[in-house]
Amino acid sequence: MNSQFTVPSQEIENRRLKIQKEMVRENVEGLFIVQRVDLFYFSGTAQNAFLYIPVEGEPLLFVKKYLPRARLESPIKEIVEIQSVKEIPGLIREYYETLPAVLGLEFDVLPVSEFKFYGNLFGGRTFVDASPMIQRLRMIKSDWEIAQIEHTADRSSKIFDYMRRNIRAGLTEMELPGLFEPFARTMGYGARLRVRDYQTEGYPWHILSGRSGGIVGLLDSPASGEGPSAAFPCGGGSKRVVPNEPIMIDFNFVFNGYHMDETRMFAIHGMPSKALKASRAIMEIHNEVLGQVKPGRTLDELFQTSVHKAEALGYERAYLGPPGYKVRFIGHGIGLELIEHPIIAQGKQQALEPGMVFALEPKMVFQGEFAAGIESVFLVTETGYRLMSKVPVDVFVC
Amino acid sequence: MNSQFTVPSQEIENRRLKIQKEMVRENVEGLFIVQRVDLFYFSGTAQNAFLYIPVEGEPLLFVKKYLPRARLESPIKEIVEIQSVKEIPGLIREYYETLPAVLGLEFDVLPVSEFKFYGNLFGGRTFVDASPMIQRLRMIKSDWEIAQIEHTADRSSKIFDYMRRNIRAGLTEMELPGLFEPFARTMGYGARLRVRDYQTEGYPWHILSGRSGGIVGLLDSPASGEGPSAAFPCGGGSKRVVPNEPIMIDFNFVFNGYHMDETRMFAIHGMPSKALKASRAIMEIHNEVLGQVKPGRTLDELFQTSVHKAEALGYERAYLGPPGYKVRFIGHGIGLELIEHPIIAQGKQQALEPGMVFALEPKMVFQGEFAAGIESVFLVTETGYRLMSKVPVDVFVC
Repeated sequence: MNSQFTVPSQEIENRRLKIQKEMVRENVEGLFIVQRVDLFYFSGTAQNAFLYIPVEGEPLLFVKKYLPRARLESPIKEIVEIQSVKEIPGLIREYYETLPAVLGLEFDVLPVSEFKFYGNLFGGRTFVDASPMIQRLRMIKSDWEIAQIEHTADRSSKIFDYMRRNIRAGLTEMELPGLFEPFARTMGYGARLRVRDYQTEGYPWHILSGRSGGIVGLLDSPASGEGPSAAFPCGGGSKRVVPNEPIMIDFNFVFNGYHMDETRMFAIHGMPSKALKASRAIMEIHNEVLGQVKPGRTLDELFQTSVHKAEALGYERAYLGPPGYKVRFIGHGIGLELIEHPIIAQGKQQALEPGMVFALEPKMVFQGEFAAGIESVFLVTETGYRLMSKVPVDVFVC
Repeated sequence: MNSQFTVPSQEIENRRLKIQKEMVRENVEGLFIVQRVDLFYFSGTAQNAFLYIPVEGEPLLFVKKYLPRARLESPIKEIVEIQSVKEIPGLIREYYETLPAVLGLEFDVLPVSEFKFYGNLFGGRTFVDASPMIQRLRMIKSDWEIAQIEHTADRSSKIFDYMRRNIRAGLTEMELPGLFEPFARTMGYGARLRVRDYQTEGYPWHILSGRSGGIVGLLDSPASGEGPSAAFPCGGGSKRVVPNEPIMIDFNFVFNGYHMDETRMFAIHGMPSKALKASRAIMEIHNEVLGQVKPGRTLDELFQTSVHKAEALGYERAYLGPPGYKVRFIGHGIGLELIEHPIIAQGKQQALEPGMVFALEPKMVFQGEFAAGIESVFLVTETGYRLMSKVPVDVFVC
């Protein structure tokens, strides 16, 4: 394992102390973490393992497979090898002299059948949903995490730069990423994207050229595209990318566990003026929202800012999707998962806080014609924002 | 949408009639299907939609987004557009004049928080786990499904052939797929792999060269590899692929919704004799198991056949992983999901049935040295088996 990629001991300690404060506030006596990303967040390892965090004191990491790597990766002091999950309650009782009366589990990801299994295994506990407190914590990125996201942003921007220099006509939307993947792999592309929600299927390239951008579909996104088949009816499809059409490339990338999610408009040779105007308008909306970012502003205020700007620019009809199929958000938290809390959505009164990192993605759909969109990742700072994305805010006519 | 990719009306009708028989047997009055793959299986559409199947009569498809595409994709007769899931119980009552007393849900994928939501929404029902009956049905592939898997197999074999002709030394394991992706995309590569279990993270290329094949890790697979970082500690890593070493390439591919999962041993220039011998032995084990395949044989019998053959060939120590970390299965069902029921595992008394499709993947790990493995997809026929994989059962020294 490359040691530059391990989570520092102080990070793990800070996260544990913070969640214990939340646990005190919510009267949760113990937290049993199973989901791989939460496990990595609180332990530094993503091996096949389980983490128990008591409301006070040191956590206990149970490793099913593979102990030597878990020891290298995790700064947790108490690490126990297990053959079966069934050993865990006994080991907790042995170590802490008691089992918690109230045990927190990740209700938003734990399937019902597994919950029933844990219910029997930890019989007699009261189970509560610990996901909201875990997500509140993960929402605020530490300086170390911000540095990791910067690394991902650096690499993603090099991939966008490569795309600008190498995009060409003639391939289908499904085939186009093949032009970029060999280079992208030298930047770390190929690692698996992570999405928390079981119904949301993350994929790296969402490429919609010309009229494909005007195709609405299942996605909670203004444009879904055609996709490869009815089995997976979203993303790039069988349409060939040609010169003189708007091409929206939404590229998701993960490096060292941290994600980027960025969109730019491309065109080969030239872009028709209607699409170019819309592409410039969407950048104005994006910049207007960024200008409003500072601690204390609510998510709804950012959303409304974008809607008002779209109206002022005359794009009310296309903004966030065609009438009847508009989405009600313009961005989402991002970090160890591609989509994290909170969502920058209509009606959300939650206030921005320093350390939050968002992907901001205003988009327009001209049904049957094209899409115009942009997406950047930004950090909420003490006084405003910092753009973490390093891809120029521009339309790329190549 | 390309009509070659739509599921025939007769398929959808047959599946519905079969699940209704299971529902009668298990006293389930209604089935509420939410998971995207099950939804596609029973309706032919993977839009943002929900399917209600009563124990008798026509199902009802509720489409949130996007109705026009759902209508094109699904042969279901009764399709209703909804704005919110909350409308569903009222619509079911309206259409069928009653709500079912016993409602089946997919307990193996439905998260606890969503289950609680549906519990309130459908208040007063008894909820039962419908996943086992759904999986039993999906286990047996129809002729139409087998034809789809053949298409995927054709394309996957062309990608393997391309790999043989284009593999070269000098890139890292992470970078190596970049040599193959531009071609693979012309075959449909790039569509998202689907895995049912929320903790299993499917990815297309599992490339372990030389000593990387000897690295145990979190995967329930004999060799996990180094992976890109501690955040994702499996699959290809930073090791460079060099001449004269064994390279195990496990490639997952999906086309038109149906998956292939195949592994072959490669080497550039030559393969050291120890690895070559092991690679040939694993092919013998693979062939020995295939020779035992016929309806009525149990999964455990196949597993034991492989273990006995490994012993007979003197590979007991390396077979299925190093001592203490051996996996207890040699294959898994495959279809609309990469890993389906049943698993060819130790102790499983379930018998093979015609129409079952499996990925058979015996593997060996020489810890600290290398892995040797093979993987093919086969169909259980009335009298034996048919290899669906079209990649030659061979070691590819390129």
